[in-house]
Amino acid sequence: MFTQLGVIGCGLMGGSFALALKKAGLVKRVVGYSKSPSTTETAKKMGVIDVAAESALLAVSGSDIVLISVPVSATEPTLKAIRHLVTPNTLFMDVGSTKSDVVEAARRVLGEKINCFVPAHPIAGKESGGIQNADATLYQGRQVILTPLPETLPALVQRATDAWSAMGTQVLKMTPENHDAAFAAVSHLPHLLAFAYYLSVARQPAGRDFLSLAGPGFRDFTRIAASEPAVWRDILMANRAEVLKQSRAFRKALDRLEMLMVSGNASSLEEQIRLVSEDRSQWQMGQLTVPRSQQK
Amino acid sequence: MFTQLGVIGCGLMGGSFALALKKAGLVKRVVGYSKSPSTTETAKKMGVIDVAAESALLAVSGSDIVLISVPVSATEPTLKAIRHLVTPNTLFMDVGSTKSDVVEAARRVLGEKINCFVPAHPIAGKESGGIQNADATLYQGRQVILTPLPETLPALVQRATDAWSAMGTQVLKMTPENHDAAFAAVSHLPHLLAFAYYLSVARQPAGRDFLSLAGPGFRDFTRIAASEPAVWRDILMANRAEVLKQSRAFRKALDRLEMLMVSGNASSLEEQIRLVSEDRSQWQMGQLTVPRSQQK
Repeated sequence: MFTQLGVIGCGLMGGSFALALKKAGLVKRVVGYSKSPSTTETAKKMGVIDVAAESALLAVSGSDIVLISVPVSATEPTLKAIRHLVTPNTLFMDVGSTKSDVVEAARRVLGEKINCFVPAHPIAGKESGGIQNADATLYQGRQVILTPLPETLPALVQRATDAWSAMGTQVLKMTPENHDAAFAAVSHLPHLLAFAYYLSVARQPAGRDFLSLAGPGFRDFTRIAASEPAVWRDILMANRAEVLKQSRAFRKALDRLEMLMVSGNASSLEEQIRLVSEDRSQWQMGQLTVPRSQQK
Repeated sequence: MFTQLGVIGCGLMGGSFALALKKAGLVKRVVGYSKSPSTTETAKKMGVIDVAAESALLAVSGSDIVLISVPVSATEPTLKAIRHLVTPNTLFMDVGSTKSDVVEAARRVLGEKINCFVPAHPIAGKESGGIQNADATLYQGRQVILTPLPETLPALVQRATDAWSAMGTQVLKMTPENHDAAFAAVSHLPHLLAFAYYLSVARQPAGRDFLSLAGPGFRDFTRIAASEPAVWRDILMANRAEVLKQSRAFRKALDRLEMLMVSGNASSLEEQIRLVSEDRSQWQMGQLTVPRSQQK
């Protein structure tokens, strides 16, 4: 289906995409570029890429599919570096966790050529990033959100859909704005809360002792607090308006629960927890959930 | 080692304790009582208990070890029901997640006989409670906190220590107050935050759509939001002073991170996330962690 994949940024996301596309038999050759030559070298040794390119532009040259898998803040300089080779013959995608800022950057840099760019956000990852964790099955059974623009070439949206589908990834389409609102709620705010929570415990005088007593609940609740700092700096900065909006909603819910605790209203507190507990018990990843109260 | 274990409250915790004690070859017979006869019946069918008792008092009769594994708020009435059979010949323990309130209740009900009671909190559990989830390995490789009082009989503390150790559980001793401060930080507050967070998302007009897009980070962050309502009502009410204190510390940390987002201070935001991320990456359950910055 594709002759050559160009991967710009050979990390967990880019490397896993290359492996998955190869595994699906959809690409003949993978050319990779990373800012750090040792990363590119590792990617080559691991068989993730076939050829190491010396620049982002050289990774695009001759490719009919290009994945830009760099931290969100590096998207704009990357697009600048490659814009001369952006043509409708090639499908350009990114993997950024925020989309409005990426689309704005693409519009600034690419102008009319933005029609060649299909913004993408695969809902997959691991705390441990880096090429050494690349995994051909990372995207299998997961979702990818595409946020095509009115001007995006339909043929490229179709090729993007086909490529992700062939890897076993469910393709959803949304506007960049709806995407960012949704992910502020279900991903970005939880990360912010996990960072803040862990900081608040670790900084207490008895914090170390407390942490040594923590159990499986703590372990799972704080797993995302170990996420990559540069990636999350970019996400929280890029999508801050939506994240702060979600944080305000969260604080209101927290206020309400604490009010019930302070006023000694145990039965209302239990009722609230029961609502959450039943709803969360029925929630399943990648499925539309219907609360028990709305079921027939 | 023990002739008869009396289990009051045949749920996940009590049932797993019975199975583990049997597996370790430490008890000849298990007598169980639950408020609901069908629970006791299931426990008997599953082989968790050998004899179903018709009252809490009858479960104590003839037992040399008794485990009170009921929701924290039911501890006091349970102690009242059994106090006539509380003697130093029998080791009495509970499994409650809060300890100051349990000790106060025990002091009120048992008076001087409180010396027979070894308050215990095993750091183990599952979201799915109930006897049907009882598991002989639930406590294996986990910690249990004992909070003996100055008057607790040392021989009973030793027997408690030996019983848990034989199940492969690491025994730690703390005061009830230190226990409650520590678990407010590492367990109770995370539950409260997870409840509030899930409520805030689910209640938004687009909440259902948002939830259908949530990925593995959300799944793990909210796992504890599916916990048992009655159990968590009791814990949050019993330990509310410490939980609210931890919540204030958390809100300050959240304020600080949001301030960095609002002011556009990306590098300080990254620095804070890096602190958390490195520290959390090194944290391991049940081990004293030393932050990288303090290592030699």
